[in-house]
Amino acid sequence: MGAVKSKRMPRAVREQQMMDAAVRTFGQRGYQAASMDEIADLAGVSKPLVYLYLNSKEDLFTACIRREARALIEAVRGGVRPDDPADRRLWGGLRAFFTHTAQNPDGWAVLHRQARTHGEPFAAEAAAMRKEIVALVTQLIAVAAREAHRDPSLPDREVAGLAEALVGAAESLAAWANATPGVSAKEAAATLMNFAWAGLGGLMEGRAWSPAGGSAQAPAPVSASV
Amino acid sequence: MGAVKSKRMPRAVREQQMMDAAVRTFGQRGYQAASMDEIADLAGVSKPLVYLYLNSKEDLFTACIRREARALIEAVRGGVRPDDPADRRLWGGLRAFFTHTAQNPDGWAVLHRQARTHGEPFAAEAAAMRKEIVALVTQLIAVAAREAHRDPSLPDREVAGLAEALVGAAESLAAWANATPGVSAKEAAATLMNFAWAGLGGLMEGRAWSPAGGSAQAPAPVSASV
Repeated sequence: MGAVKSKRMPRAVREQQMMDAAVRTFGQRGYQAASMDEIADLAGVSKPLVYLYLNSKEDLFTACIRREARALIEAVRGGVRPDDPADRRLWGGLRAFFTHTAQNPDGWAVLHRQARTHGEPFAAEAAAMRKEIVALVTQLIAVAAREAHRDPSLPDREVAGLAEALVGAAESLAAWANATPGVSAKEAAATLMNFAWAGLGGLMEGRAWSPAGGSAQAPAPVSASV
Repeated sequence: MGAVKSKRMPRAVREQQMMDAAVRTFGQRGYQAASMDEIADLAGVSKPLVYLYLNSKEDLFTACIRREARALIEAVRGGVRPDDPADRRLWGGLRAFFTHTAQNPDGWAVLHRQARTHGEPFAAEAAAMRKEIVALVTQLIAVAAREAHRDPSLPDREVAGLAEALVGAAESLAAWANATPGVSAKEAAATLMNFAWAGLGGLMEGRAWSPAGGSAQAPAPVSASV
Protein backbone atom coordinates (compact mmCIF):
# COMPACT_ATOMS: atom_id res chain seq x y z
CA MET A 1 0.00 0.00 0.00
CA GLY A 2 3.04 2.28 -0.22
CA ALA A 3 1.82 3.60 -3.56
CA VAL A 4 -1.01 5.54 -1.97
CA LYS A 5 1.48 7.87 -0.31
CA SER A 6 1.38 10.29 -3.26
CA LYS A 7 0.54 13.78 -2.11
CA ARG A 8 -1.65 14.41 -5.14
CA MET A 9 -4.42 12.12 -4.01
CA PRO A 10 -7.73 13.93 -3.32
CA ARG A 11 -8.83 14.05 0.28
CA ALA A 12 -12.02 12.06 -0.33
CA VAL A 13 -10.07 9.16 -1.84
CA ARG A 14 -7.57 9.17 1.02
CA GLU A 15 -10.33 9.21 3.59
CA GLN A 16 -11.92 6.18 1.99
CA GLN A 17 -8.56 4.39 2.10
CA MET A 18 -8.18 5.24 5.76
CA MET A 19 -11.66 3.95 6.42
CA ASP A 20 -11.00 0.76 4.45
CA ALA A 21 -7.97 0.20 6.69
CA ALA A 22 -9.97 1.10 9.79
CA VAL A 23 -12.86 -1.26 9.00
CA ARG A 24 -10.40 -4.07 8.44
CA THR A 25 -8.55 -3.37 11.67
CA PHE A 26 -11.64 -2.78 13.83
CA GLY A 27 -13.34 -5.84 12.33
CA GLN A 28 -10.40 -8.17 12.86
CA ARG A 29 -8.87 -6.84 16.10
CA GLY A 30 -11.88 -5.35 17.80
CA TYR A 31 -12.39 -1.72 18.75
CA GLN A 32 -10.24 -1.67 21.87
CA ALA A 33 -7.27 -3.55 20.45
CA ALA A 34 -7.18 -1.67 17.14
CA SER A 35 -4.43 0.92 17.14
CA MET A 36 -4.33 4.12 15.12
CA ASP A 37 -0.72 3.24 14.25
CA GLU A 38 -1.83 0.04 12.59
CA ILE A 39 -4.66 1.77 10.74
CA ALA A 40 -2.33 4.49 9.45
CA ASP A 41 0.24 1.88 8.42
CA LEU A 42 -2.34 -0.19 6.58
CA ALA A 43 -3.67 2.91 4.79
CA GLY A 44 -0.11 3.94 3.91
CA VAL A 45 -0.39 7.36 5.55
CA SER A 46 1.00 9.00 8.67
CA LYS A 47 -0.89 8.81 11.93
CA PRO A 48 -1.22 12.63 12.20
CA LEU A 49 -2.95 12.61 8.82
CA VAL A 50 -5.53 10.12 10.09
CA TYR A 51 -6.20 12.38 13.08
CA LEU A 52 -6.29 15.44 10.84
CA TYR A 53 -8.86 13.89 8.51
CA LEU A 54 -10.95 11.82 10.94
CA ASN A 55 -10.32 13.55 14.25
CA SER A 56 -10.19 10.70 16.78
CA LYS A 57 -10.44 6.94 17.13
CA GLU A 58 -14.05 7.41 18.30
CA ASP A 59 -14.97 9.54 15.29
CA LEU A 60 -13.19 7.18 12.92
CA PHE A 61 -15.09 4.22 14.36
CA THR A 62 -18.39 6.10 14.09
CA ALA A 63 -17.63 6.98 10.48
CA CYS A 64 -16.87 3.30 9.77
CA ILE A 65 -20.15 2.15 11.33
CA ARG A 66 -22.10 4.70 9.28
CA ARG A 67 -20.38 3.83 6.02
CA GLU A 68 -20.79 0.08 6.51
CA ALA A 69 -24.42 0.45 7.59
CA ARG A 70 -25.19 2.57 4.54
CA ALA A 71 -23.50 0.05 2.23
CA LEU A 72 -25.37 -2.91 3.75
CA ILE A 73 -28.75 -1.20 3.57
CA GLU A 74 -28.15 -0.14 -0.02
CA ALA A 75 -27.09 -3.64 -0.97
CA VAL A 76 -30.27 -5.15 0.50
CA ARG A 77 -32.52 -2.49 -1.06
CA GLY A 78 -30.81 -3.09 -4.38
CA GLY A 79 -31.49 -6.81 -4.17
CA VAL A 80 -35.25 -6.41 -3.77
CA ARG A 81 -36.92 -5.98 -7.15
CA PRO A 82 -40.28 -4.24 -6.59
CA ASP A 83 -42.02 -5.98 -9.49
CA ASP A 84 -41.18 -9.50 -8.33
CA PRO A 85 -43.71 -11.60 -6.46
CA ALA A 86 -43.41 -11.56 -2.66
CA ASP A 87 -41.29 -14.67 -2.25
CA ARG A 88 -38.82 -13.59 -4.92
CA ARG A 89 -38.53 -10.13 -3.40
CA LEU A 90 -37.56 -11.77 -0.13
CA TRP A 91 -35.17 -14.14 -1.91
CA GLY A 92 -33.56 -11.17 -3.67
CA GLY A 93 -33.12 -9.32 -0.39
CA LEU A 94 -31.64 -12.35 1.38
CA ARG A 95 -29.26 -13.10 -1.47
CA ALA A 96 -28.06 -9.50 -1.41
CA PHE A 97 -27.69 -9.52 2.38
CA PHE A 98 -25.64 -12.71 2.56
CA THR A 99 -23.55 -11.81 -0.48
CA HIS A 100 -22.73 -8.44 1.03
CA THR A 101 -21.88 -9.79 4.50
CA ALA A 102 -19.77 -12.58 2.99
CA GLN A 103 -17.88 -10.15 0.79
CA ASN A 104 -17.42 -7.66 3.63
CA PRO A 105 -16.77 -9.82 6.68
CA ASP A 106 -14.88 -7.04 8.46
CA GLY A 107 -17.67 -4.55 7.81
CA TRP A 108 -20.17 -7.07 9.13
CA ALA A 109 -18.04 -7.69 12.22
CA VAL A 110 -17.92 -3.93 12.81
CA LEU A 111 -21.71 -3.64 12.58
CA HIS A 112 -22.83 -6.84 14.22
CA ARG A 113 -20.20 -7.24 16.93
CA GLN A 114 -17.99 -4.22 17.51
CA ALA A 115 -20.58 -1.46 17.19
CA ARG A 116 -22.91 -3.16 19.64
CA THR A 117 -20.33 -4.00 22.27
CA HIS A 118 -18.56 -0.75 23.04
CA GLY A 119 -21.26 1.43 24.49
CA GLU A 120 -22.55 4.72 23.15
CA PRO A 121 -22.61 6.44 20.74
CA PHE A 122 -21.70 3.34 18.71
CA ALA A 123 -24.55 1.12 19.86
CA ALA A 124 -27.06 3.81 18.85
CA GLU A 125 -25.56 3.92 15.34
CA ALA A 126 -25.88 0.16 15.00
CA ALA A 127 -29.41 0.26 16.40
CA ALA A 128 -30.44 2.91 13.85
CA MET A 129 -29.15 0.72 11.02
CA ARG A 130 -30.97 -2.31 12.39
CA LYS A 131 -34.16 -0.31 12.73
CA GLU A 132 -33.99 0.64 9.07
CA ILE A 133 -33.51 -3.00 8.03
CA VAL A 134 -36.41 -4.10 10.25
CA ALA A 135 -38.62 -1.38 8.68
CA LEU A 136 -37.67 -2.61 5.20
CA VAL A 137 -38.50 -6.22 6.10
CA THR A 138 -41.72 -5.18 7.85
CA GLN A 139 -42.88 -3.42 4.72
CA LEU A 140 -41.92 -6.42 2.60
CA ILE A 141 -43.98 -8.78 4.75
CA ALA A 142 -46.92 -6.37 4.98
CA VAL A 143 -47.06 -5.96 1.21
CA ALA A 144 -46.80 -9.73 0.74
CA ALA A 145 -49.69 -10.27 3.16
CA ARG A 146 -51.76 -7.64 1.37
CA GLU A 147 -51.05 -9.22 -2.00
CA ALA A 148 -52.08 -12.61 -0.66
CA HIS A 149 -55.49 -11.07 0.13
CA ARG A 150 -55.65 -12.83 3.45
CA ASP A 151 -58.82 -12.20 5.38
CA PRO A 152 -58.34 -11.44 8.19
CA SER A 153 -54.96 -10.15 7.14
CA LEU A 154 -51.97 -10.41 9.46
CA PRO A 155 -52.25 -7.86 12.28
CA ASP A 156 -49.61 -5.12 12.30
CA ARG A 157 -48.04 -6.37 15.49
CA GLU A 158 -47.74 -9.89 14.10
CA VAL A 159 -46.01 -8.47 11.01
CA ALA A 160 -43.67 -6.47 13.26
CA GLY A 161 -42.85 -9.61 15.24
CA LEU A 162 -42.22 -11.64 12.07
CA ALA A 163 -39.86 -8.94 10.81
CA GLU A 164 -37.91 -9.01 14.10
CA ALA A 165 -37.70 -12.79 13.87
CA LEU A 166 -36.48 -12.73 10.28
CA VAL A 167 -33.87 -10.03 10.93
CA GLY A 168 -32.62 -11.88 14.03
CA ALA A 169 -32.38 -15.10 12.03
CA ALA A 170 -30.43 -13.36 9.27
CA GLU A 171 -27.99 -11.74 11.72
CA SER A 172 -27.35 -15.02 13.46
CA LEU A 173 -26.93 -16.95 10.23
CA ALA A 174 -24.57 -14.36 8.71
CA ALA A 175 -22.32 -14.53 11.78
CA TRP A 176 -22.40 -18.34 11.59
CA ALA A 177 -21.74 -18.42 7.85
CA ASN A 178 -18.74 -16.09 8.16
CA ALA A 179 -17.33 -18.20 11.00
CA THR A 180 -17.94 -21.59 9.33
CA PRO A 181 -15.45 -22.58 6.63
CA GLY A 182 -17.01 -23.44 3.30
CA VAL A 183 -20.50 -22.00 3.83
CA SER A 184 -21.22 -19.81 0.82
CA ALA A 185 -23.45 -16.75 0.74
CA LYS A 186 -25.81 -18.60 -1.59
CA GLU A 187 -26.03 -21.53 0.80
CA ALA A 188 -26.76 -19.30 3.79
CA ALA A 189 -29.38 -17.37 1.82
CA ALA A 190 -30.99 -20.64 0.69
CA THR A 191 -31.10 -21.98 4.25
CA LEU A 192 -32.80 -18.84 5.50
CA MET A 193 -35.18 -18.66 2.54
CA ASN A 194 -36.28 -22.23 3.13
CA PHE A 195 -36.65 -21.57 6.85
CA ALA A 196 -38.46 -18.26 6.45
CA TRP A 197 -40.74 -19.17 3.56
CA ALA A 198 -41.42 -22.90 3.77
CA GLY A 199 -40.88 -23.22 7.52
CA LEU A 200 -39.55 -26.27 9.30
CA GLY A 201 -42.93 -27.93 8.79
CA GLY A 202 -42.66 -27.44 5.04
CA LEU A 203 -39.08 -28.71 5.01
CA MET A 204 -40.04 -31.82 6.98
CA GLU A 205 -42.70 -32.53 4.38
CA GLY A 206 -40.22 -31.97 1.56
CA ARG A 207 -41.73 -28.65 0.56
CA ALA A 208 -38.58 -26.54 0.28
CA TRP A 209 -39.01 -23.16 -1.32
CA SER A 210 -37.97 -22.99 -4.97
CA PRO A 211 -37.35 -19.89 -7.05
CA ALA A 212 -39.71 -21.25 -9.70
CA GLY A 213 -42.75 -22.28 -7.79
CA GLY A 214 -42.91 -20.72 -4.35
CA SER A 215 -43.30 -23.31 -1.65
CA ALA A 216 -44.86 -25.89 -3.96
CA GLN A 217 -43.83 -29.54 -4.05
CA ALA A 218 -40.89 -28.44 -6.14
CA PRO A 219 -38.53 -30.83 -7.89
CA ALA A 220 -35.66 -28.37 -7.62
CA PRO A 221 -35.66 -26.78 -4.18
CA VAL A 222 -33.36 -23.85 -3.69
CA SER A 223 -29.90 -24.92 -2.63
CA ALA A 224 -26.32 -23.81 -2.86
CA SER A 225 -26.21 -25.11 -6.42
CA VAL A 226 -29.04 -22.89 -7.69
CA MET B 1 -35.67 -5.68 52.16
CA GLY B 2 -34.52 -4.68 55.65
CA ALA B 3 -35.75 -7.98 57.03
CA VAL B 4 -32.97 -9.96 55.33
CA LYS B 5 -30.40 -8.32 57.60
CA SER B 6 -30.74 -11.09 60.19
CA LYS B 7 -27.37 -12.63 60.96
CA ARG B 8 -28.86 -16.11 61.14
CA MET B 9 -29.47 -16.42 57.42
CA PRO B 10 -27.40 -19.20 55.78
CA ARG B 11 -24.71 -18.05 53.41
CA ALA B 12 -26.25 -19.75 50.37
CA VAL B 13 -29.54 -17.91 50.85
CA ARG B 14 -27.77 -14.59 51.31
CA GLU B 15 -25.69 -15.14 48.21
CA GLN B 16 -28.82 -15.78 46.19
CA GLN B 17 -30.34 -12.56 47.52
CA MET B 18 -27.21 -10.65 46.57
CA MET B 19 -27.34 -12.17 43.11
CA ASP B 20 -31.04 -11.35 42.74
CA ALA B 21 -30.17 -7.75 43.52
CA ALA B 22 -27.18 -7.85 41.19
CA VAL B 23 -29.13 -9.28 38.24
CA ARG B 24 -31.75 -6.60 38.69
CA THR B 25 -29.17 -3.83 38.89
CA PHE B 26 -26.96 -5.09 36.04
CA GLY B 27 -30.02 -5.77 33.86
CA GLN B 28 -31.57 -2.35 34.40
CA ARG B 29 -28.52 -0.07 34.73
CA GLY B 30 -25.97 -1.93 32.65
CA TYR B 31 -22.69 -3.39 33.83
CA GLN B 32 -20.68 -0.19 33.95
CA ALA B 33 -23.28 1.98 35.65
CA ALA B 34 -24.27 -0.61 38.25
CA SER B 35 -22.68 0.17 41.60
CA MET B 36 -21.82 -2.29 44.35
CA ASP B 37 -23.40 0.16 46.80
CA GLU B 38 -26.73 -0.10 45.04
CA ILE B 39 -26.53 -3.89 44.86
CA ALA B 40 -25.71 -4.16 48.56
CA ASP B 41 -28.53 -1.75 49.41
CA LEU B 42 -31.02 -3.66 47.33
CA ALA B 43 -29.95 -6.95 48.89
CA GLY B 44 -30.18 -5.40 52.36
CA VAL B 45 -26.58 -6.20 53.28
CA SER B 46 -23.37 -4.25 53.72
CA LYS B 47 -21.04 -3.70 50.78
CA PRO B 48 -18.11 -5.49 52.52
CA LEU B 49 -20.32 -8.56 52.84
CA VAL B 50 -20.97 -8.57 49.08
CA TYR B 51 -17.22 -8.42 48.48
CA LEU B 52 -16.59 -11.08 51.11
CA TYR B 53 -19.06 -13.48 49.51
CA LEU B 54 -18.65 -12.70 45.82
CA ASN B 55 -15.18 -11.20 45.67
CA SER B 56 -15.46 -8.44 43.06
CA LYS B 57 -17.86 -6.76 40.68
CA GLU B 58 -16.38 -8.87 37.86
CA ASP B 59 -16.88 -12.13 39.77
CA LEU B 60 -20.37 -11.13 40.81
CA PHE B 61 -21.29 -10.36 37.19
CA THR B 62 -19.83 -13.68 36.02
CA ALA B 63 -21.80 -15.51 38.72
CA CYS B 64 -24.96 -13.74 37.57
CA ILE B 65 -24.39 -14.68 33.93
CA ARG B 66 -23.84 -18.32 34.89
CA ARG B 67 -26.87 -18.50 37.12
CA GLU B 68 -29.16 -16.84 34.57
CA ALA B 69 -27.80 -19.00 31.72
CA ARG B 70 -28.36 -22.16 33.74
CA ALA B 71 -31.92 -21.10 34.61
CA LEU B 72 -32.78 -20.29 30.99
CA ILE B 73 -31.38 -23.54 29.63
CA GLU B 74 -33.18 -25.56 32.29
CA ALA B 75 -36.44 -23.76 31.54
CA VAL B 76 -36.16 -24.53 27.82
CA ARG B 77 -35.17 -28.16 28.41
CA GLY B 78 -38.07 -28.52 30.82
CA GLY B 79 -40.49 -27.22 28.20
CA VAL B 80 -39.56 -29.86 25.60
CA ARG B 81 -41.45 -33.09 26.23
CA PRO B 82 -39.52 -35.93 24.57
CA ASP B 83 -42.60 -37.98 23.72
CA ASP B 84 -44.38 -35.19 21.86
CA PRO B 85 -44.32 -35.01 18.06
CA ALA B 86 -41.65 -32.74 16.57
CA ASP B 87 -43.77 -29.62 16.15
CA ARG B 88 -45.12 -29.82 19.69
CA ARG B 89 -41.63 -30.33 21.10
CA LEU B 90 -40.59 -27.10 19.38
CA TRP B 91 -43.74 -25.35 20.58
CA GLY B 92 -43.04 -26.49 24.14
CA GLY B 93 -39.48 -25.20 23.95
CA LEU B 94 -40.53 -21.84 22.51
CA ARG B 95 -43.29 -21.38 25.08
CA ALA B 96 -40.81 -22.10 27.85
CA PHE B 97 -38.21 -19.75 26.36
CA PHE B 98 -40.54 -16.77 25.97
CA THR B 99 -42.22 -17.35 29.32
CA HIS B 100 -38.85 -17.44 31.04
CA THR B 101 -37.47 -14.35 29.31
CA ALA B 102 -40.71 -12.44 29.95
CA GLN B 103 -40.72 -13.38 33.64
CA ASN B 104 -37.01 -12.61 34.02
CA PRO B 105 -36.46 -9.51 31.87
CA ASP B 106 -33.42 -8.44 33.92
CA GLY B 107 -31.84 -11.87 33.61
CA TRP B 108 -32.47 -11.81 29.87
CA ALA B 109 -30.96 -8.32 29.61
CA VAL B 110 -27.89 -9.59 31.48
CA LEU B 111 -27.49 -12.53 29.09
CA HIS B 112 -28.50 -10.98 25.80
CA ARG B 113 -27.14 -7.47 26.17
CA GLN B 114 -24.82 -6.92 29.11
CA ALA B 115 -22.82 -10.16 28.95
CA ARG B 116 -22.10 -9.70 25.27
CA THR B 117 -21.11 -6.06 25.40
CA HIS B 118 -18.43 -5.83 28.08
CA GLY B 119 -15.61 -7.92 26.72
CA GLU B 120 -14.11 -11.04 28.21
CA PRO B 121 -14.55 -13.17 30.22
CA PHE B 122 -18.26 -12.26 30.10
CA ALA B 123 -18.76 -12.65 26.36
CA ALA B 124 -17.32 -16.18 26.54
CA GLU B 125 -19.82 -17.09 29.27
CA ALA B 126 -22.70 -15.82 27.14
CA ALA B 127 -21.31 -17.61 24.07
CA ALA B 128 -21.12 -20.92 25.98
CA MET B 129 -24.77 -20.58 26.99
CA ARG B 130 -25.79 -19.78 23.43
CA LYS B 131 -23.82 -22.75 22.13
CA GLU B 132 -25.72 -25.04 24.46
CA ILE B 133 -29.06 -23.67 23.28
CA VAL B 134 -28.02 -24.02 19.63
CA ALA B 135 -26.99 -27.64 20.29
CA LEU B 136 -30.37 -28.33 21.88
CA VAL B 137 -32.23 -26.83 18.91
CA THR B 138 -29.95 -28.61 16.42
CA GLN B 139 -30.78 -31.93 18.01
CA LEU B 140 -34.47 -31.09 18.02
CA ILE B 141 -34.44 -30.32 14.29
CA ALA B 142 -32.29 -33.36 13.45
CA VAL B 143 -34.63 -35.71 15.31
CA ALA B 144 -37.64 -34.10 13.64
CA ALA B 145 -36.06 -34.59 10.21
CA ARG B 146 -35.25 -38.21 11.02
CA GLU B 147 -38.79 -38.85 12.19
CA ALA B 148 -40.14 -37.33 9.00
CA HIS B 149 -38.17 -40.02 7.11
CA ARG B 150 -37.09 -37.51 4.50
CA ASP B 151 -34.97 -38.99 1.75
CA PRO B 152 -32.53 -37.43 1.22
CA SER B 153 -32.69 -36.18 4.76
CA LEU B 154 -31.54 -32.69 5.65
CA PRO B 155 -27.74 -32.47 5.54
CA ASP B 156 -26.04 -31.80 8.90
CA ARG B 157 -24.86 -28.39 7.84
CA GLU B 158 -28.35 -27.37 6.76
CA VAL B 159 -29.66 -28.48 10.16
CA ALA B 160 -26.90 -26.46 11.86
CA GLY B 161 -27.83 -23.40 9.81
CA LEU B 162 -31.54 -23.79 10.58
CA ALA B 163 -30.74 -24.01 14.30
CA GLU B 164 -28.68 -20.80 14.11
CA ALA B 165 -31.54 -19.10 12.28
CA LEU B 166 -34.12 -20.22 14.84
CA VAL B 167 -32.01 -19.20 17.83
CA GLY B 168 -31.27 -15.80 16.27
CA ALA B 169 -34.97 -15.30 15.58
CA ALA B 170 -35.85 -16.21 19.18
CA GLU B 171 -33.23 -13.85 20.65
CA SER B 172 -34.40 -10.98 18.48
CA LEU B 173 -38.06 -11.60 19.22
CA ALA B 174 -37.52 -11.91 22.98
CA ALA B 175 -35.71 -8.56 23.05
CA TRP B 176 -38.53 -7.03 21.00
CA ALA B 177 -41.27 -8.58 23.14
CA ASN B 178 -39.69 -7.32 26.37
CA ALA B 179 -39.33 -3.83 24.87
CA THR B 180 -42.85 -3.67 23.37
CA PRO B 181 -45.69 -2.94 25.80
CA GLY B 182 -48.47 -5.50 25.78
CA VAL B 183 -46.73 -8.31 23.88
CA SER B 184 -47.21 -11.45 25.97
CA ALA B 185 -44.89 -14.43 26.13
CA LYS B 186 -47.59 -16.56 24.53
CA GLU B 187 -47.99 -14.11 21.66
CA ALA B 188 -44.24 -13.97 21.01
CA ALA B 189 -44.00 -17.76 21.14
CA ALA B 190 -46.95 -18.07 18.74
CA THR B 191 -45.41 -15.61 16.29
CA LEU B 192 -42.14 -17.53 16.24
CA MET B 193 -43.85 -20.91 16.04
CA ASN B 194 -45.86 -19.77 13.03
CA PHE B 195 -42.77 -18.30 11.43
CA ALA B 196 -40.52 -21.25 12.16
CA TRP B 197 -42.98 -24.05 11.40
CA ALA B 198 -45.39 -22.77 8.78
CA GLY B 199 -43.04 -20.20 7.27
CA LEU B 200 -44.10 -16.93 5.70
CA GLY B 201 -45.31 -18.86 2.67
CA GLY B 202 -47.61 -20.95 4.83
CA LEU B 203 -48.87 -17.86 6.66
CA MET B 204 -49.60 -16.09 3.36
CA GLU B 205 -51.66 -19.09 2.32
CA GLY B 206 -53.47 -19.12 5.65
CA ARG B 207 -51.68 -22.19 6.90
CA ALA B 208 -50.66 -21.06 10.36
CA TRP B 209 -49.35 -23.75 12.66
CA SER B 210 -51.87 -25.09 15.14
CA PRO B 211 -51.20 -27.18 18.24
CA ALA B 212 -53.78 -29.69 17.07
CA GLY B 213 -52.88 -30.35 13.49
CA GLY B 214 -49.35 -29.25 12.66
CA SER B 215 -49.28 -26.90 9.70
CA ALA B 216 -52.55 -28.14 8.24
CA GLN B 217 -55.31 -25.84 7.01
CA ALA B 218 -56.25 -25.38 10.62
CA PRO B 219 -59.40 -23.62 11.77
CA ALA B 220 -57.75 -22.55 15.02
CA PRO B 221 -54.22 -21.31 14.32
CA VAL B 222 -52.02 -20.74 17.31
CA SER B 223 -52.37 -17.25 18.70
CA ALA B 224 -52.10 -15.37 21.94
CA SER B 225 -55.53 -16.67 22.93
CA VAL B 226 -54.58 -20.36 22.66
